[in-house]
Order: sequence, then C-alpha cells, then structure tokens
Amino acid sequence: MKVNGKPYRSIWLAPDGERVEIIDQTRLPHEFHVAVLATLDDAARAIRDMQVRGAPLIGATAAYGVCLGLRDGAADRDMERIGAVLTACRPTAVNLRWAVERMRSVLLPLPEEERLAAAYREAAAICDEDVAVNEAIGNHGLQLIEEAWERKGRQGPVRILTHCNAGWLATVDWGTALAPVYKAHEKGIPVFVWVDETRPRSQGAGLTAWELQAQGIEHRLIVDNAGGHLMQRGLVDLCIVGTDRTTATGDVCNKIGTYLKALAARDNGVPFYVALPGSTIDWRLHDGIREIPIEERGQEEVLLVRGKTESGALETVRIAPDATPAANPAFDVTPALLVDGLITERGICPASREGLARLYPEMA
Amino acid sequence: MKVNGKPYRSIWLAPDGERVEIIDQTRLPHEFHVAVLATLDDAARAIRDMQVRGAPLIGATAAYGVCLGLRDGAADRDMERIGAVLTACRPTAVNLRWAVERMRSVLLPLPEEERLAAAYREAAAICDEDVAVNEAIGNHGLQLIEEAWERKGRQGPVRILTHCNAGWLATVDWGTALAPVYKAHEKGIPVFVWVDETRPRSQGAGLTAWELQAQGIEHRLIVDNAGGHLMQRGLVDLCIVGTDRTTATGDVCNKIGTYLKALAARDNGVPFYVALPGSTIDWRLHDGIREIPIEERGQEEVLLVRGKTESGALETVRIAPDATPAANPAFDVTPALLVDGLITERGICPASREGLARLYPEMA
Repeated sequence: MKVNGKPYRSIWLAPDGERVEIIDQTRLPHEFHVAVLATLDDAARAIRDMQVRGAPLIGATAAYGVCLGLRDGAADRDMERIGAVLTACRPTAVNLRWAVERMRSVLLPLPEEERLAAAYREAAAICDEDVAVNEAIGNHGLQLIEEAWERKGRQGPVRILTHCNAGWLATVDWGTALAPVYKAHEKGIPVFVWVDETRPRSQGAGLTAWELQAQGIEHRLIVDNAGGHLMQRGLVDLCIVGTDRTTATGDVCNKIGTYLKALAARDNGVPFYVALPGSTIDWRLHDGIREIPIEERGQEEVLLVRGKTESGALETVRIAPDATPAANPAFDVTPALLVDGLITERGICPASREGLARLYPEMA
Repeated sequence: MKVNGKPYRSIWLAPDGERVEIIDQTRLPHEFHVAVLATLDDAARAIRDMQVRGAPLIGATAAYGVCLGLRDGAADRDMERIGAVLTACRPTAVNLRWAVERMRSVLLPLPEEERLAAAYREAAAICDEDVAVNEAIGNHGLQLIEEAWERKGRQGPVRILTHCNAGWLATVDWGTALAPVYKAHEKGIPVFVWVDETRPRSQGAGLTAWELQAQGIEHRLIVDNAGGHLMQRGLVDLCIVGTDRTTATGDVCNKIGTYLKALAARDNGVPFYVALPGSTIDWRLHDGIREIPIEERGQEEVLLVRGKTESGALETVRIAPDATPAANPAFDVTPALLVDGLITERGICPASREGLARLYPEMA
C-alpha cells in the first residue's frame, strides 16, 4: 500500500540485500519511521516490543530474523539458538512458531554454507505468499462490496464498519478485512469506512485510520460504543472484521468487542463477514466459547491512554482514579451463528463446518 | 454518599446559609475539590462548564442559581433575567428549564420581599425530593439484587454491570442505577460492579469508579468492548443502567453503547434493567428509534483523551492521526423489547406502555 504516494510493504529487504526494514508501528500514527533490523536481536526486539504486530507480519519478521541470525553462524547449534530466541519473544503467537519451524525444515537438510542464501529466499517466499493470500481475500471480498453497491442502486458509498486493525500493517501487504476495501477503492467503487477505536490499545484510531488516510479512503473514527446506533439508523451497509483464530465450525476469536458488533449487525440485518487466511483455522477446535482460552492482558492498557499532546510530545495519561483496578480480556468469541460468511483466500463460505470443509477438503 | 468517610451530597448550602457548594466534577477523579457558588454567574458557569452534570443535579443547581440571583434584586424584571441566564447555559437540558419554571411559579405570586427566603426553601425542597426519589429507586432495585443473590445460593458477590455514570454525582444523592447497589451494600449483600469506561467522555472511568471506590464497593473498570465477553462467560449476574429519556412505551435513550450491552444481555440471558425517576418519561413519545433525535457532539471528544500524567499534571492527548475525522453520536436507543424492567421511584414495572401506565395512571 502507499505511504505519501510511495508503495510500501510492512517489511522488506534493505537495499544492501542483507538487512531488513520495517515500519515501526509503535510510533504510528504520530510518526512514520522506518526501522532497520541488522541483527537477530533487532528482529527479536521488533517482535517483542510490538514494532511489528499482526500474525502474518510477526511470522514474516521471524523468518527474516532467522536470516539475520544465520549471518553470525549457520551450524545446527546456531539454528537451535536462533529458533529459541525468536519463539520466546511472544510465546502465544502461532505464526511465529510456524515461521521458525518452516525455516528450520527447509534449512536443516542443507549444507551449512548454503543455508544463509536459502534462508533469504525462503523468507522472501513467506512474504510473497502472504501478499498473494491477502490479495485473493481482497478479490473475493470485493464481490460483497460490489453486491452491496448494486443493492444501493450504485448511490452513495458502500459504508463498511470494521473493528481493530486487520489492514496491511497487520500483514505483509493488503491486509485481511481491509483488503476488499482496498480492492473496491482501486476499482473505483466508492467506499466509506466506520473505524472502531478499539480500546484498550486503540488500533482502530492509531493504525486503521492511518492506513485509510494514507490510501485516500473516506472514513470516520467512532468510539466502540457507537456502531450499534449507526446500524440501527441504517448507516452501515456491511461489517468486515478479521480473526485471530477460527474454529473448524466457524466460530471466530477476534479482538475484544467484535462479538458486540456481530450482535448489533444481526439485530439490524446488516451483513457481518470475517476475513481470514486459512492458516488461522484451528481444525482441532469445535466450540470457540468453550475451547478458546482468552488472554487476560495487563490492567495498564485499560487505565492508561497514550497519545500526542498539543505540543507534539508523546505522553501517557491515566483516565481513572489511582487505585482503580481494571480487567482486560483481550479477545472475544463470535459464534458462527452470528457470522454471515467467511472470506478466505479460496473464496467465501458459510461460517460452518460444512462451509469450511468445502473450501479446505484436505483439512476437514 | 461518603467521601473520605464524610457524608456528602453533590450540592449543598454553605455554612453561611447563603452561598452554595458543589463538588467540581471536571476535576474528578484526580482531585476532589469543593467549589463555592456565590453569584448567579457562578451557578451558570458551573452548569455550562459541566462542573455539575446529570439532569437532577443540573436542576438543583439551577434552583440554587435562582436564589443567588435574587440576592441582587427580586423584582419581576430580575426574575426574568435570572431565568434567561440559567436556561441559556445548556439549551437542551430538560431539568434545567423545569427547575427554573418551578421556581418562577412559586416565587412570582409572592411579594418581592418574601421571594429570597422562599427561593431557598424551594431549592432545598427540590434537592430533598430528588434524594427521596432516588432512595425509593434504590429500595425497589434492591429487591432485584437480593433475588440475584438468592439465585446464586448466597455464594459470592452479585456482579452488576453498569454503563456511564448514573450514580449520586449525577443526582443530589444516591443516584439512579447505582442507588440499588448502594442499598445492597448498606444491607450487607456482597456486590461487585463491572464499570464500563464509557467512551468518549469516560464517565465510567472518571466518575463511577471514583464513586464506588469512595464507598468501598468492589469493582473493576473494563473497556466498553468487554461486557459482551463477560456475559458470555457467565461473569455478569445483572445489568443496571440509567436513562436520559424514556418513551411512554418503555424505549430508553441513554449514553451511547447502552444498546450493545442490552443486546449482549439478551443473548446470554442476563437480566437488563433501567433505573429512572418518573420525570425522565416523555409521555408524548411512542417509538424511541424513530422519534428521539440523537445529539451529535464535537469530534474532539472522540479524538482527544484527558487524564493525569505520571508527574501528576492533567494533560490531553490525541489518539488518532492529526487529520482523522470522527463522528460522535452521544446517545442511543435501547428498544423496550430488550429491557427486562424499569426501576422507578414507584416500583419496578415491565418496559411497556401497560407497565408504565400501571405505575403512573395519572400520566398515561
């Protein structure tokens, strides 16, 4: 996607062909800063400190982290150490372990002297595959936006509500939930996005709003409380969100608050779709509410808000009394019953065991 | 209610018997500051700048504002000017106009020299009546909490979710939605409150959390996104919220986001109650979604967050890119169908035309 008119991915190889560059997402939306990763430790820090976030981008960064680590030695012993350093950065990130495992399985059979070059090739392949998957999600989801536009008699923009950031910053490019929006915009279909702030970490305000602005797509930021009202008044044509984990039966575990929007969409007849790469489907799970443990994160995320002061400095403010305790469940589960469809790289299917099995027969 | 162990109302006559004292709510939760109102202009400023907020408290402040104004002259001409100054402070506040009108109708028939003393008596009566109404709401609502406790076999606290601030700071004392909680606590029934942050103005974080802490009632602050998940996991026994405006058919117009919690409560079988004084019922309205216009407030409330920095200073930070536009609908309508009952000063009734007519036969 474009930043100030120039095309970017969220991670790329530096001009020297060895180092890796990323957009430091901890400094968004107030500063656009490209960080250079020169060592394994740089890559580990970028993952740990959330300079990169979003499952696909974490995976891609880990893959390049392996490359950077191999520059200091490519023995089996080195491979072990590199893998251990990276997977320790965010222990629950499935894609992180997946990427490290994929690099190992490709590199270990090779002679030591061939491993570094092969690692760079494999990391590039992981990135390109992610872009292709997201672009396919975008093309399939585009149909839904086109249909919504037809239903409106091609009058006014298609108004899409999204939650959190499932845009290109969470992937290598295109994003998942936002990929159809970018495809529609490219095709000249007028789109407008209601951007949920997404407390507590406010990824909607900080990342989704920034992405849409950079692409020149019309949007408005709203508090997480507002979406139900907007749907009630007929101001939302379509909801599209992402998912962190999807059961084999189509339940989706996504950023906290997704479930409330799905309830409002159902109550008001607004189509509610979830965009995902097949890799987020956990085929062993059959009941999201019972089987998916929800991460409880630190209280400070609720109690403290970070932003830019009028003088331009970044500052953190406490919004509650000093002694107030908070609870901070980070995700919730939207039952498949509330989901009108899943947008995958293989097409759109009902959120059900049968729907998913038809698209992924080899897994079901 | 108590602050640092000492009983307070949200407004009271100063020891000199002439001036009026209030808790400056713009400085909560980070500072507890009592402001003295010595003139009509002081009272007008307190209302305009939201040092006092909540319909009943605005009404009480306006009544005392009339008293303060009369100290400079009590002719009919003075009465007109005082009324005009006060009603201009917040043009849409129904209780403000109601209080000014009540003071006029009591005072105008009296000889000029009797008006000042009568005004102080009437303002005190308005305050005392509000306290009595809220205490009655508390006693009726207490039954619901007792029943919930029985259903739990008197095990563990009754966990109540509330939205925004419908506590004693919004009234003269007791509050509406929180009055039953305070009554239960007084009676020794263990209660625990999930406090919705309530973006954009965060009255949950700033006021409700502060109130509960001062009363020693167990609670946790949550983001507005979290309530649905908590209900899904069986962690909420009861929802109680307030309302700004209620239709004759039981639809409730309350702070934005209330509707989403009502949907989640219905989806999970959690009882959802609304506490209100009969004065918030607008008997001319029959369909909240069609008939109640929703106030659209300034974008800055969404884009900027105010709080306390680590050094103790109050500071405002921007959470989105500089050019991001926001939308800010301030209220939403929860249809009567989603409301299990209305808790009024006359008892609890179904949220329906019949239910309300039985409690308020003179109005229906």
